[in-house]
Amino acid sequence: MGAMFLSVFATFSAFTQSEKIDEDALFIRKIHDIALTNSQCYDWLRHLTKEVGHRLSASPQAAAAVEFTRQMLDTLGLDSVWLQPCRVPHWIRGEKEIVRISQSVMGTVELHSLALGNAIGTGERGIAAPVVEVKTFEELEKLGPASVKGKIVFFNRPFDPTKINTFEAYGGAVEQRAWGASEAAKYGAIGVLVRSMASGLDDVPHTGGLAYRDGIEKIPAVAISTNDAELLSSLLQQGEVKVFMRTLCQQFEDEPSYSVVGEIKGSEKPEEIILVGGHLDSWDVGEGAHDDGAGCVQSMGVLQLLKRLNYQPRRTIRCVLFMNEENGLMGGKTYGEEAKRKGEFHLAAIESDRGGFTPRGFTVDGEADVFALRFPAMQPWSDLLEPYGLRIKKGGGGADISPLKSQQALLIGYEPDPQRYFDYHHTHADVFETVNKRELELGTAAITSLVFLIDKYGLEGDGNKN
Amino acid sequence: MGAMFLSVFATFSAFTQSEKIDEDALFIRKIHDIALTNSQCYDWLRHLTKEVGHRLSASPQAAAAVEFTRQMLDTLGLDSVWLQPCRVPHWIRGEKEIVRISQSVMGTVELHSLALGNAIGTGERGIAAPVVEVKTFEELEKLGPASVKGKIVFFNRPFDPTKINTFEAYGGAVEQRAWGASEAAKYGAIGVLVRSMASGLDDVPHTGGLAYRDGIEKIPAVAISTNDAELLSSLLQQGEVKVFMRTLCQQFEDEPSYSVVGEIKGSEKPEEIILVGGHLDSWDVGEGAHDDGAGCVQSMGVLQLLKRLNYQPRRTIRCVLFMNEENGLMGGKTYGEEAKRKGEFHLAAIESDRGGFTPRGFTVDGEADVFALRFPAMQPWSDLLEPYGLRIKKGGGGADISPLKSQQALLIGYEPDPQRYFDYHHTHADVFETVNKRELELGTAAITSLVFLIDKYGLEGDGNKN
Repeated sequence: MGAMFLSVFATFSAFTQSEKIDEDALFIRKIHDIALTNSQCYDWLRHLTKEVGHRLSASPQAAAAVEFTRQMLDTLGLDSVWLQPCRVPHWIRGEKEIVRISQSVMGTVELHSLALGNAIGTGERGIAAPVVEVKTFEELEKLGPASVKGKIVFFNRPFDPTKINTFEAYGGAVEQRAWGASEAAKYGAIGVLVRSMASGLDDVPHTGGLAYRDGIEKIPAVAISTNDAELLSSLLQQGEVKVFMRTLCQQFEDEPSYSVVGEIKGSEKPEEIILVGGHLDSWDVGEGAHDDGAGCVQSMGVLQLLKRLNYQPRRTIRCVLFMNEENGLMGGKTYGEEAKRKGEFHLAAIESDRGGFTPRGFTVDGEADVFALRFPAMQPWSDLLEPYGLRIKKGGGGADISPLKSQQALLIGYEPDPQRYFDYHHTHADVFETVNKRELELGTAAITSLVFLIDKYGLEGDGNKN
Repeated sequence: MGAMFLSVFATFSAFTQSEKIDEDALFIRKIHDIALTNSQCYDWLRHLTKEVGHRLSASPQAAAAVEFTRQMLDTLGLDSVWLQPCRVPHWIRGEKEIVRISQSVMGTVELHSLALGNAIGTGERGIAAPVVEVKTFEELEKLGPASVKGKIVFFNRPFDPTKINTFEAYGGAVEQRAWGASEAAKYGAIGVLVRSMASGLDDVPHTGGLAYRDGIEKIPAVAISTNDAELLSSLLQQGEVKVFMRTLCQQFEDEPSYSVVGEIKGSEKPEEIILVGGHLDSWDVGEGAHDDGAGCVQSMGVLQLLKRLNYQPRRTIRCVLFMNEENGLMGGKTYGEEAKRKGEFHLAAIESDRGGFTPRGFTVDGEADVFALRFPAMQPWSDLLEPYGLRIKKGGGGADISPLKSQQALLIGYEPDPQRYFDYHHTHADVFETVNKRELELGTAAITSLVFLIDKYGLEGDGNKN
């Protein structure tokens, strides 16, 4: 793109995005102007990633993240900022894991690996066994104990690359990571290797949580990079492959921790809460930049922008930075229980936990009656959001806000562009440098714009813009 | 985003993009399936960037790029592949430029710089002079010869960060780079420094073409990084600043070169041409990955996908890889002249020259009567493109296809997400690694889908899908 000639300049004028010249359009325009010129979210993210770093629940960095974000919220002149206690699992990876092909047609090969979160360790001496590859739990069941007992099961079902939304591809593969260990243990497997939950082929292993089923023996589980998964699979086609794996993960007693909350009280309907949130914890690798540092600073940024604009909300706007989304969801669960206990009503809860990429819109979820009533109330806003490339459609809300669903909250997931998310998710590569400043700030503006519309018009259909 | 719990799985099902189960929707779905599983465009881009490298017109690499793409098109089983001769400017940067603050309150400082394309050099000894900062040509005119004669003029108008589309911000600043040298020379300036055409603040200088106005003395012109522009501006507020600049650019006689063309002949209306294209040349830094290696491999990819799908086009589908978009547009101009001479009719021309990012849609341009007739014919396709996040709207076409506008072609610009483009544009940073494989392939699928619809239904309104 050279564009030094008038013929090219001429093409630019036509780029101007349409803007309805009405009050709401102008306010949403102001929100974007300030987000792109005076938002603090990028600097907050730099601190959270570069100074605090990764922050697994119960780690010292998680405590630092709580303190840092509490202090930042305190600078915004909110009506209240507080910490909500919760108890969180305390799991540690321990010494760097070792996963090695110890016997194959090409001899020994070290694999790029990360133990899965919540997994038990192999013990100092590690384990070694022949590998059995499967792509589905059905395949595993067919093989049965005869082929699986004493073996290491290798789950190698890749993402479906034809899914336009990578979260769908993730949804179609992640059961291997989440439940593979218990499924394999049913038939006597002694360990599990899982192909990383990733969109492409590279050497980056992706960790993430697993859950052990009650009453089934717990066995070690490790993720290997997609390139290594391809290699292992090809070696298995040429003969027996033995793998040695050694992980020293440990699970300790639960620890006390906190979710961080700040709010601006509503002037007319303070009892109606509009929640914006992300999760403060991350996995114990990389910097948790996209997952979910971005969602945290965007949620804080919503309050910063509203204060910067001297906006007096009719309803209560609350930012919640949830602890422990990654390996227990204790922050989200505790928040839901407390909300129920206090009889709080959440009109809407917006979660940002899909990365700090260019905004595409929002996906909306809720109990049938809640959705039927409030989703249509959002339709008149399409024209206001369209100039910013934002669409509102049916879809998922988010993990941390999910306990509020049964409490009649409309659940809204902020939806950025999904193409690059699973290149970084749960890896050493999820660092500050992969977050683009404008993309992050535009997300803050998008969420703030929706919060403004919900606050001004409610979600009841009547008194609604049209 | 942890998603190990069922509450989270539940959110995925809702992500499924809506798909109309009709013939066209299924074919567009197939186009995307193949683009995401069997497209060669990413491997072609790797070769064009990593093996060929940057490829300024008249450079040996430009010749290599012509030969490589011609050979690749030859493998696709097209009806014809040929080279279209054109004569291109031959400019070289020469030895690395030096731009140094030689006198200021903080002493001497080396600046990150790149001479502008087409600029003359300073000569071996370089030039040194006090700096005068302006933000607009109007400011410059007010200063006049009294303040400008014998000085180095520093154009420091930044991008407007509040423009949602970064190409608008570029359009609002690029005159400084394109015409600043001649504007400053009018008043006796001996050299020009230009703030890089960039979205953010960093140390990366952005080159790009300038044009000298006839009858005005040619003076040297260099781009400096946005960080250095901020520094220079702050130093100027504290007192006189002298800058030394040395560039050894040279302009030689024009050289023969080529645009590369391949086509599939139409079975029913071969005389109606649907063109897809990008430009093969790049600036002489980085690898020309986004600008415009991406557009070239996507244009080639359109033909590859159509052949892979055994699609027999009714109209002629032609891929054109234009030479010399960056510093002369001779490939595009020559193509337009030849089309006119041969009496060819282009029903539509689609250009991809805005980077290899996630598809957002297309912008459409044309002579008033052409636009009025053919733009409405595209509206019924919105439902088919919406599941892929694609929108069709009025806007720019592109530089290389612009000569076809007066020949009644509908000009269509492929529009990817614009947020990151001006972090890389015309810099050392525009390398293969910054192009995401899925984003590139989705762009190829988007363009192919539009080509399919134009080919099947035409643009006349009648016989059109509705």
